[in-house]
Amino acid sequence: MEERFEIRLSGSGGQGLILAGIILAEAAILDGKNAVQSQSYGPEARGGASRSEVIISNTDIDYPKVTKPKILLALTDEALHKFKDNIADEGVIIIDSSVKKVDTPFKIIQLPIIETARNKIGKSMVANMVAVGVITELTKAVSREGVEKAILNRVPKGTEELNIKAFNAGCNLAEQI
Amino acid sequence: MEERFEIRLSGSGGQGLILAGIILAEAAILDGKNAVQSQSYGPEARGGASRSEVIISNTDIDYPKVTKPKILLALTDEALHKFKDNIADEGVIIIDSSVKKVDTPFKIIQLPIIETARNKIGKSMVANMVAVGVITELTKAVSREGVEKAILNRVPKGTEELNIKAFNAGCNLAEQI
Repeated sequence: MEERFEIRLSGSGGQGLILAGIILAEAAILDGKNAVQSQSYGPEARGGASRSEVIISNTDIDYPKVTKPKILLALTDEALHKFKDNIADEGVIIIDSSVKKVDTPFKIIQLPIIETARNKIGKSMVANMVAVGVITELTKAVSREGVEKAILNRVPKGTEELNIKAFNAGCNLAEQI
Repeated sequence: MEERFEIRLSGSGGQGLILAGIILAEAAILDGKNAVQSQSYGPEARGGASRSEVIISNTDIDYPKVTKPKILLALTDEALHKFKDNIADEGVIIIDSSVKKVDTPFKIIQLPIIETARNKIGKSMVANMVAVGVITELTKAVSREGVEKAILNRVPKGTEELNIKAFNAGCNLAEQI
């Protein structure tokens, strides 16, 4: 039976969400699954919410477009506003503490993702890896081991430790829910 | 009328083809077009040819999967062998000088992409930006100005000049055809 898991990572440009998507996709294949990672650019990308998407499946991925993600990550108000209605029935929205909650029939989990990166790790730019940790621990769609290997493969040399620390901090955040 | 342009970048892992795809896609939106950039990971990605794909269109992109690319870049023999038969009728294959030519009904253009990066720029790791230059000049699917801005947005800090030099060297290679 096909198990297909769609994740949409949204926020603003510069938050490293493409890299976060690439790492989740690569972790999935290290786990023995298939994955497609993509980003769409259109008129809406010119100033506004940016997004990066991952599809993970245990079979071939014939339709590589995210339609109704099970997980929506929103790191900004604008991103939440834009993508909040387009989620799977059992979907979950993960928002940063800096994002204002909105009315939605979906479950919202609010966590201090950016603050953890800034204050616990000391670099707000690794908020993307904190988010990857949260998603990993919350969904179990990928293994922690797979993500750690993917991080080591993909982040700029010299930043491995920082990114792994951020990832672990994200896992811890989700464990506390 | 829809004008859709599909590009497949193939080679081995570590050649920076994801970044090359991201830069081409971002250049397209800076030019006012739409773009989707993606990479698929599957059993074949575990050791073997890696690929990164870009779709550029002047309208919305409803089907975000590359089917018959107009341009196939192949930086390794394995990548060429794997993808050479899956190209648009009027498609062109760009191969590195290190890659052995194969029998194919498609037009093959062979250029010293990796050698240019290594000998003219001094870093073989910027072969990806040489390839972006070749594709930009050959196809005009994106503007040189758009690509230069996208490079400045996307490459690691401190490597901007190196990458722009490699891009220009790639444009020059294609101009000489």
